[in-house]
Amino acid sequence: MKQRVVVWDGQRLSVQRCEVPPLGLHEARIRIRLAGICSTDLELIRGYKGFSGVPGHEFVGEVIDGPRQWIGKRVVGEINIWCGLCDACERGDVTHCRNRKILGMVDMPGAFAETIQLPVKNLHLVPDGVPDEAAVFAEPLAAACRIPQVHHLYAGHRVVLIGAGRLGMLCAQVIHLTGADLSVLVRRESQAELLVGWGIRAVYDHELTPGVVDYVVDCTGSPDGFRKALALVRPRGTIILKSTYHGQSEVDLSPVVVNEIRIDGSRCGPFDDALHLLREKQVHVQPLIEAVYPLEDAAEALEHAARPGTMKILLKPQAG
Amino acid sequence: MKQRVVVWDGQRLSVQRCEVPPLGLHEARIRIRLAGICSTDLELIRGYKGFSGVPGHEFVGEVIDGPRQWIGKRVVGEINIWCGLCDACERGDVTHCRNRKILGMVDMPGAFAETIQLPVKNLHLVPDGVPDEAAVFAEPLAAACRIPQVHHLYAGHRVVLIGAGRLGMLCAQVIHLTGADLSVLVRRESQAELLVGWGIRAVYDHELTPGVVDYVVDCTGSPDGFRKALALVRPRGTIILKSTYHGQSEVDLSPVVVNEIRIDGSRCGPFDDALHLLREKQVHVQPLIEAVYPLEDAAEALEHAARPGTMKILLKPQAG
Repeated sequence: MKQRVVVWDGQRLSVQRCEVPPLGLHEARIRIRLAGICSTDLELIRGYKGFSGVPGHEFVGEVIDGPRQWIGKRVVGEINIWCGLCDACERGDVTHCRNRKILGMVDMPGAFAETIQLPVKNLHLVPDGVPDEAAVFAEPLAAACRIPQVHHLYAGHRVVLIGAGRLGMLCAQVIHLTGADLSVLVRRESQAELLVGWGIRAVYDHELTPGVVDYVVDCTGSPDGFRKALALVRPRGTIILKSTYHGQSEVDLSPVVVNEIRIDGSRCGPFDDALHLLREKQVHVQPLIEAVYPLEDAAEALEHAARPGTMKILLKPQAG
Repeated sequence: MKQRVVVWDGQRLSVQRCEVPPLGLHEARIRIRLAGICSTDLELIRGYKGFSGVPGHEFVGEVIDGPRQWIGKRVVGEINIWCGLCDACERGDVTHCRNRKILGMVDMPGAFAETIQLPVKNLHLVPDGVPDEAAVFAEPLAAACRIPQVHHLYAGHRVVLIGAGRLGMLCAQVIHLTGADLSVLVRRESQAELLVGWGIRAVYDHELTPGVVDYVVDCTGSPDGFRKALALVRPRGTIILKSTYHGQSEVDLSPVVVNEIRIDGSRCGPFDDALHLLREKQVHVQPLIEAVYPLEDAAEALEHAARPGTMKILLKPQAG
């Protein structure tokens, strides 16, 4: 059996027909219904981690092979494949497994393909009322849900989110649910319109007061964003770093000590929480979809996703 | 009335005779018995914060003027002079007062002098059993005590302290009291001897395993220290930045996000805790004293303190 997959060979992207590898023990094969393009995918094909292979880690699909009770189920999946044996797994930090593979990133072909295979323990059933176009956001929304999982945010907290992009728009909504006094830094009218439509305050740079914010959530993934976060946060405040940085940055750590700032790196989060929010329609994800491309046009889709200000671009391997 | 003070004019250090300024309301004048030289003092006379004036913020002295009940008392003093009115003070974060002066650093002549003046609310009585040579460590020991005040360390935690200098040796002892599984990275036999004498494990660089430490306490104040801390800390572990950095550093923030590292800046701490530990003799400070210089030899004393591996250098304004 052969399938079409998107391959990054370190130089360029192409769609190839490849043999489907055999299914491992306790694995399921999933036919991809939709896959999402994330900023990390764009970083990967710019050289991050020296990646080559099939990218893609945001998906919704249908189980077509594996344990009988899973066949035909609509699923999303956790992207870290953990060993269950190392010190991190023993602590319960399975997303930090020492021996982990990562879907579409490390030793595991990704979701820009007709099918993928994943351990059954990584799968989550998609509730009936959640359409594919919402379920495909489960992975990044889970990452956003990591923020309230770790930080007890409430109405007494002034929170500023910077980097109102694909991930930022999800984080903003999840933080807004906590009742925190949230402002989202925007650069474009289109960002402000989306946010205000959801009842979230959008602010432009000149409206922000430095040094008074309890929590700054940095979804920019850029050294400039980190410097901005340091300028905004109050003494003894917290900066949550939410997106992956690429390469060295010139930063001054002195204010971190002098102002006793806390910096918290934050990555993957709870799928159950994300699926709950999607089922209860407590977050809006479908307005973030800008375009859906067929798998053949993956190169064009990634190029589109890389344009500044672009929200979510999806790939749809099957027609119809 | 005139007094001798050590003055840094931005170019060089000199001992000058200056008029003693009048005492403000609710202030006390303190005759300095001993003053300690801290790495921050060395940074200040290397250009940190564009400082000029009288340095020095670690001291023990005797109140010679001010409210009657304080006269003749032996005291140490908090170095941040807070307003009590700003948002930081209202939150109780008085060491982060928006309008603060800082003894020997910002708008307040320091303790490398015959006398200083400080608000009475900044003073702490030195318990009778604590000699001057121990009490002069109250300020840096309080800074060390900020670590267990914020972080709940216990026997289950692997802690590595890097930067076993003046401040590091105090932090190491305070952390050791928590029962944490502490290793202190040393470079010199003399550091190891002191630590082992106190029952604290000293390790050399090649003995450390990267990526498995729960808490890394960075007392190096250098970008290299921070990079080392990032290499040692485990996923979801914590780095405590304990000493002031000077200038920009090239750092890679990507592992902070990927490994969900927490970074906590840490500065001034509770004097009461420090004086308690000194009274109960639960920390050893006097073995850290390397030399005591008269005020006249301040330049030589600071030069001595700046030599690599030097522990505490004290200034003694009065002979005898």
